[in-house]
Amino acid sequence: MNGDASRRMFLKSVGVLAGAAVAGSTASAASAAPSALNDSKKFAPRFGLASYTTRKLTLDQTIALVKRLNLTCLTLKDMHLPMNVPLEATAQTAQKVRNAGLDLYGGGVIYMNSEVEVNRAFDYAKAAGFRLIVGVPRHELLDYVEDKIKTYNIAVAIHNHGPEDRLYPTVQSAYTRLEDRDKRFGLCIDIGHTQRSGIRPADDILQFHDRMLDIHFKDVSAPTRRGSTVEIGRGVIDIPAALEALRHVGYQGIASYEYEKDADDPLPGLAESVGYVNGVITMMNRNK
Amino acid sequence: MNGDASRRMFLKSVGVLAGAAVAGSTASAASAAPSALNDSKKFAPRFGLASYTTRKLTLDQTIALVKRLNLTCLTLKDMHLPMNVPLEATAQTAQKVRNAGLDLYGGGVIYMNSEVEVNRAFDYAKAAGFRLIVGVPRHELLDYVEDKIKTYNIAVAIHNHGPEDRLYPTVQSAYTRLEDRDKRFGLCIDIGHTQRSGIRPADDILQFHDRMLDIHFKDVSAPTRRGSTVEIGRGVIDIPAALEALRHVGYQGIASYEYEKDADDPLPGLAESVGYVNGVITMMNRNK
Repeated sequence: MNGDASRRMFLKSVGVLAGAAVAGSTASAASAAPSALNDSKKFAPRFGLASYTTRKLTLDQTIALVKRLNLTCLTLKDMHLPMNVPLEATAQTAQKVRNAGLDLYGGGVIYMNSEVEVNRAFDYAKAAGFRLIVGVPRHELLDYVEDKIKTYNIAVAIHNHGPEDRLYPTVQSAYTRLEDRDKRFGLCIDIGHTQRSGIRPADDILQFHDRMLDIHFKDVSAPTRRGSTVEIGRGVIDIPAALEALRHVGYQGIASYEYEKDADDPLPGLAESVGYVNGVITMMNRNK
Repeated sequence: MNGDASRRMFLKSVGVLAGAAVAGSTASAASAAPSALNDSKKFAPRFGLASYTTRKLTLDQTIALVKRLNLTCLTLKDMHLPMNVPLEATAQTAQKVRNAGLDLYGGGVIYMNSEVEVNRAFDYAKAAGFRLIVGVPRHELLDYVEDKIKTYNIAVAIHNHGPEDRLYPTVQSAYTRLEDRDKRFGLCIDIGHTQRSGIRPADDILQFHDRMLDIHFKDVSAPTRRGSTVEIGRGVIDIPAALEALRHVGYQGIASYEYEKDADDPLPGLAESVGYVNGVITMMNRNK
């Protein structure tokens, strides 16, 4: 079994890929080498929401919004699933989301600045039934986090936060620190911050997909640190190229929309974004 | 000058095409004969809103919604531009819409069941500065309406209303009554009602485009009379085929979204629809 096959088996076993049919073949390395293998299949990624989008809405409003948009997956930020309550309450709230029919697959972004915070994050994630933590661990805690991943069998996806960020300004800055680590220690590629760092999201996906466990899907107004989130299709990201890259690498995970604009009323802009992506995907499958 | 060239000159002169660059060539007949002439250009139709969508919202709310979606054109239904007020008030309200930066190009659907109603419709349209009335004239009034079109130089686009309708169930049922009439007497193809009649919207566009002056753009849940409006992309209409037909025939008019679902809160579903169409068009232009 080669490395990619074993990683797929793991991802399936821990449930990061739960509900997805694992592709018969994926690109075999983090390269942009052309391959028609995955490009000939119907492309139907699963989409979710990163609930920072609805940070001014309640959890109930968030659930209703996700369902109205026909999204099926969700990661919760702590304003919707507080970290300062008993773990029993965390479990109950998570169950409420699942009772609504949504795949609550993870949470975050969770910052990890100390071993205490790492411990708390994993206990919280376990109580919530997360398969994945979208995290930002300090560099000196990476070994400690890796041990926790093995103990809890919960994946951690490091989130790139753009050119201002000290720890992980780019996907590559996280990727290089993950070499030889457990395969459950990977990346949440935030394509907005990628573009704000001057990098084409499609290139990050093609280059680093072997560690890609989650995606924050969005568009931004400029390919610089001055860029901010806009409705997908109105910004500068080459969305078709990003989606084609996901198809090309046979991505089997979830892509979660994160729409930071219009915090008081995010649904219309998010709906426009979802529609745009659905339109592009319709054409990708049509053009086969 | 052939018939098509003269029609384009007229359409430009009455302003139905105001703001559009008239294509150097359009398909020369109402046929589906393939032609690469228009298919090689960047496809960038103008989009508007048919305000029946926002029938439970005020005019101010409608203007805000249209601008939020980056739409530029508008046709008003009478709940937003009342017909039972002095014409000076009609003109003032229309000016308010234009002051907001929108192309208020027409109104309707307006039913015309008597000469008195035809007279009223044209006086109202003139006061509002419409270039176009989306209308449903009784068959015996077609000559009278045609005279009015000539006198007022305001176009009338007959709207197909689906299999239940006695007067114009299909586009063809209107088209056949327009033969040899003034070229300003044409069609508003409602692609939802077309599909509800069991006809592919792309086929209606290809077959009847020489009389096409306006479009109601939407999706429906079923290709039968039981179909109702849904978010574009969630229904049964082949939206890429409809847009490709518009490109193929070199349509220079406006396509107005009409989203009848969610009357109390139409923005999210309409936004999803707009996003979907934008995504498809992005791919149409990308694949050139």
